[in-house]
Amino acid sequence: MGSPVHRVSLGDTWSRQVHPDIDSERRTPSFSVDRLTNILDGGVQNTMLRRKVEGILQGDPVFNLKDHYFMTQDQLYEAAVQKAFHLEMLAQRLGWSEDGPERTYAKRALAGYANLNLHGVAMNALRSLGSDEQIGKWGQLGRNFQIIATYAQTELGHGSYLKGLETEATYDAATQEFVIHSPTMTATKWWPGELGRSVTHAIVFAQLICSGAQHGMHAFMVPIRSLQDHTPLPGITVGDIGPKMGLEYVDNGFLRLNHVRVPRENMLSRFAEVLPDGTYRRLGTPQSNYLAMLVTRVWLLDPEAKILDYQTQQQKLFPQLAMSYAFHFVATSLLEFFDGAYSAILKRDFSLLPELHALSTGMKAMIADFCTQGAEICRRACGGHGYSKLSGLPKLVTEVTASCTYEGENTVLYLQVARFLMKSYLQAQVSAGPPQKPLPPSVMYLAKPGPARCAARTAADFLCPDLYTTAWAHVSTRLIKDAAHQTQTLMRSGVDQHDAWNQTAAVHLQAAKAHCYYITVRNFKEAVEKLDNEPEIQRVLQRLCDLYALHGILTNSGDFLHDGFLSGAQVDMARTAFLDLLPLIRKDAILLTDAFDFTDNCLNSALGCYDGHVYERLFEWAQKAPANNQVVEWNPL
Amino acid sequence: MGSPVHRVSLGDTWSRQVHPDIDSERRTPSFSVDRLTNILDGGVQNTMLRRKVEGILQGDPVFNLKDHYFMTQDQLYEAAVQKAFHLEMLAQRLGWSEDGPERTYAKRALAGYANLNLHGVAMNALRSLGSDEQIGKWGQLGRNFQIIATYAQTELGHGSYLKGLETEATYDAATQEFVIHSPTMTATKWWPGELGRSVTHAIVFAQLICSGAQHGMHAFMVPIRSLQDHTPLPGITVGDIGPKMGLEYVDNGFLRLNHVRVPRENMLSRFAEVLPDGTYRRLGTPQSNYLAMLVTRVWLLDPEAKILDYQTQQQKLFPQLAMSYAFHFVATSLLEFFDGAYSAILKRDFSLLPELHALSTGMKAMIADFCTQGAEICRRACGGHGYSKLSGLPKLVTEVTASCTYEGENTVLYLQVARFLMKSYLQAQVSAGPPQKPLPPSVMYLAKPGPARCAARTAADFLCPDLYTTAWAHVSTRLIKDAAHQTQTLMRSGVDQHDAWNQTAAVHLQAAKAHCYYITVRNFKEAVEKLDNEPEIQRVLQRLCDLYALHGILTNSGDFLHDGFLSGAQVDMARTAFLDLLPLIRKDAILLTDAFDFTDNCLNSALGCYDGHVYERLFEWAQKAPANNQVVEWNPL
Repeated sequence: MGSPVHRVSLGDTWSRQVHPDIDSERRTPSFSVDRLTNILDGGVQNTMLRRKVEGILQGDPVFNLKDHYFMTQDQLYEAAVQKAFHLEMLAQRLGWSEDGPERTYAKRALAGYANLNLHGVAMNALRSLGSDEQIGKWGQLGRNFQIIATYAQTELGHGSYLKGLETEATYDAATQEFVIHSPTMTATKWWPGELGRSVTHAIVFAQLICSGAQHGMHAFMVPIRSLQDHTPLPGITVGDIGPKMGLEYVDNGFLRLNHVRVPRENMLSRFAEVLPDGTYRRLGTPQSNYLAMLVTRVWLLDPEAKILDYQTQQQKLFPQLAMSYAFHFVATSLLEFFDGAYSAILKRDFSLLPELHALSTGMKAMIADFCTQGAEICRRACGGHGYSKLSGLPKLVTEVTASCTYEGENTVLYLQVARFLMKSYLQAQVSAGPPQKPLPPSVMYLAKPGPARCAARTAADFLCPDLYTTAWAHVSTRLIKDAAHQTQTLMRSGVDQHDAWNQTAAVHLQAAKAHCYYITVRNFKEAVEKLDNEPEIQRVLQRLCDLYALHGILTNSGDFLHDGFLSGAQVDMARTAFLDLLPLIRKDAILLTDAFDFTDNCLNSALGCYDGHVYERLFEWAQKAPANNQVVEWNPL
Repeated sequence: MGSPVHRVSLGDTWSRQVHPDIDSERRTPSFSVDRLTNILDGGVQNTMLRRKVEGILQGDPVFNLKDHYFMTQDQLYEAAVQKAFHLEMLAQRLGWSEDGPERTYAKRALAGYANLNLHGVAMNALRSLGSDEQIGKWGQLGRNFQIIATYAQTELGHGSYLKGLETEATYDAATQEFVIHSPTMTATKWWPGELGRSVTHAIVFAQLICSGAQHGMHAFMVPIRSLQDHTPLPGITVGDIGPKMGLEYVDNGFLRLNHVRVPRENMLSRFAEVLPDGTYRRLGTPQSNYLAMLVTRVWLLDPEAKILDYQTQQQKLFPQLAMSYAFHFVATSLLEFFDGAYSAILKRDFSLLPELHALSTGMKAMIADFCTQGAEICRRACGGHGYSKLSGLPKLVTEVTASCTYEGENTVLYLQVARFLMKSYLQAQVSAGPPQKPLPPSVMYLAKPGPARCAARTAADFLCPDLYTTAWAHVSTRLIKDAAHQTQTLMRSGVDQHDAWNQTAAVHLQAAKAHCYYITVRNFKEAVEKLDNEPEIQRVLQRLCDLYALHGILTNSGDFLHDGFLSGAQVDMARTAFLDLLPLIRKDAILLTDAFDFTDNCLNSALGCYDGHVYERLFEWAQKAPANNQVVEWNPL
């Protein structure tokens, strides 16, 4: 079996020997790693073949990835195209078959850094949708890279929602041509890989219109760039869609078609064709009927609703909206508390320090965690456009996530909170006796046991701030108590303090998180109560506060069901209350974000501008990408 | 109140009017957005002031962020430094006080794009830790940017874990100087912001050694670069740590000190000082005692353990390891199923198509979701180094997350699975009667109700594959049933199909996810069973399979407790079983990742190389950053 390539030193002088820490991990294996690798590969033959391919690539400087971290986007693109061609030539030289395992292994070894994958997708589409004659013609050209193609379906205004696609292909019987056209700006093809700079052709999906009738989506082979000098052909506007969260080496592109004419033969016609006189004809195999049905089914759907009207979108976004407000109010009161505590500290009164530490630590960890999750949820809720840097969301996600680590790693911070909670809990137990030192205000609830069962009888009962605040206090108390008891039990059995903490860290973490959630719910509730003089605002924020508390209960329902505090039926009530809040908040959703009063310049987002011109802005901004402002050098093979 | 800046058109011709879709959202507000903004700002005066500041910045081209998406890292860095200086001059000209709200509002408006924040942190540290004389001297220089400082605590080998810091400051009474030294490569200061290119000074945290005794961490003001030409001073090696997941405009840096001498007066001495003869003296205020205790406490901790030995790390990483194997095996059997179904389709037998569609759709959504989460969990588990692109993890995270959107947005896909499940469930209900069309194999379980209560009596019972597979089947069946009934109830009450689905989408989503988890658990169990002839490998993979199933149960415990299938006590048993598995898997953890047999070149990770030389590689690779290979142009103010 071939020598494993990963065990070959990368040539660094200090790397001739394995580091002793990791070496010790491998010293006494309880099973054969090589054998397990074979199982993963599906047999020892595959492992051998894979390692052989890796060995070939390892020896070729074109396939080295080491300097990629320091390349510009241009260099990354060029390196990825170079790898793709180099790999193809290598494959042809070594006789690797088109669908053989060697190419798969080579791509694995290149970690995606090779380009022209969409060319492969387009060639597959050609094989599925093209007639034998079409496959023969373009397939051969594609195999030799005499043409490079992409698969152009998604449009600026419409993603997976095929129904919304606007590109048209109108048959002109006089010339026996299709006129391919983007009737609106949102009809611009957007995202296809390799469209930005590389391809000569695109398989364009468009609504077929012939003899005055619409026949649904069909695919057309459309020449995009000159095979002489690679400049866009007449009627074609094409370019790069700009920087993305990742995949910098792929030139995802856009394409506008202004009455571009292609011959009748360019409609892929395995399942349907247009006769010279404009007659539309389905080709009668069961497959074609299935495909036709599939496409038709999509077209039968109802009109495109505003995306915010979908429950699944509301369920993703509104808890994030509620969190923003919850965290705003908790930050405000934490700052107030800090000011008071700081004055005391200046007067050498350090009594508030432990609570200040626990509160600020816990809130930092919680807010960093939730904001990271929330930013990513919002980014994904924007579909593909959320992946464009121009949406502003990748910057938010990649920078907020850093806050989970800096200024104290979140897990470490939660465990510090847990220590404070355990201490407070034990103090509360003692305080049950004769009066002692009072508990800090944030943990006073540990000394005041509430009801053992939630009193809610209807979904509406869950819209009561006292009820859900009590529920959170109950769960937090129970988890803190459990964690404390588990640690104490271990220590009484002779385990030392450090090991006892390590063995119960998971439950302490859970307790600290529940406590932090309780703090934010209680604080939000109190902040809303104070808005008595603003009844309209109080009403909308009350809904967000309810949503925040209920979202937390539903996300952690196990903790509430665990000791029977909530019954399964009550969790269902809470879910009903939660879902019923969504359409109410829907009405105010835009205004509730308007109130943040961020400037467009600060958000710097093509999707988030106040004026709502999402597609225009995306399109305009993408034009500035350096790739769209370069003179093309074209070296045909 | 000032005109809201965000409502000013950005000057695009098509942006003079608000888009009608978003305009309609604001047409009939149920509350005053401006008033809510005031509440968020903490008063109408603050809103006015904030908008005034935003207006000033808006009018200044230096503060425009629009072109930042197309800048190189160099340009971003320069723009961020320029903004910081420009803002400071503006603030001084307009008389904004050091801690006043105007600067805070200006930073908010710049969305973090201004640099030199660490200079502020360093100046704050100086004010907390320096003597009045030191604050007077360096504070004044810093205020005028005659020096630029950073806060250098974190080291290459040690993050928040202060105890591990290795940098030394040894007092030399002969010359009345401290000798600041990095004794090892891991002692290199790593990450401090603005250290890479900008600063002239660093507040360096080092272990104080005087008169032969160690006195713990103290802070020293150390000149780093020449005030004449900005070149590094003798004994100083300094540079940029290379590309990061975000924050490209910040020059996070590294610093090695080779016996660098600073005068005795450069130890920040509010709380402790070293007398000329080398006597160490604490300064007797309560604060100093508190601080000393804080630092000492840190030094009293036990020796640094391998990070993989912490339960919190195991709890994060091992479920990801288990998932990798679960997904490997599910992909293998899905491919087998696909091959069979495809052969049938070629023979015009489409009967397997709905199940193939549901399985591939569900697995795509689930694997994309879990891999995105998992990559981010692994990235964060590496602490700060996971944020460096050199770790390879940011590339994984930012590229895997794209897979949640492309080739079908995950929520849309899960809902397609849900439709298949509802249909299958209804068919199973009918099948309860006389024999009908058989259910597809993947949903056969819907027709075979299991026990209503889990039979586990001990934690060990949860290590039984049949027990947890049955548990997952139970929960999935219940959720599918609930979702189907809710939709049917709505439709019977007259709601049309589309609205009924939209109003129950959240529960259908939950059901589809549970079904997918069940499929992967059952498949993992069966794959492990087949490894009879590999007893050692079977044993370790059995543990991963157990961990995978139990992790899912604990993460979704509410679904299992909801109808009493599990009791709270049984959930605790499952948790015990889960936690007990962690140290067992710990032994094999490295080998289980070795078996993936990825080449170092393919992983392209300074942290993930086979040889385990993490710090050497990070250090070496960082040297290649373009910022470290440029000639410095220095224009003193």
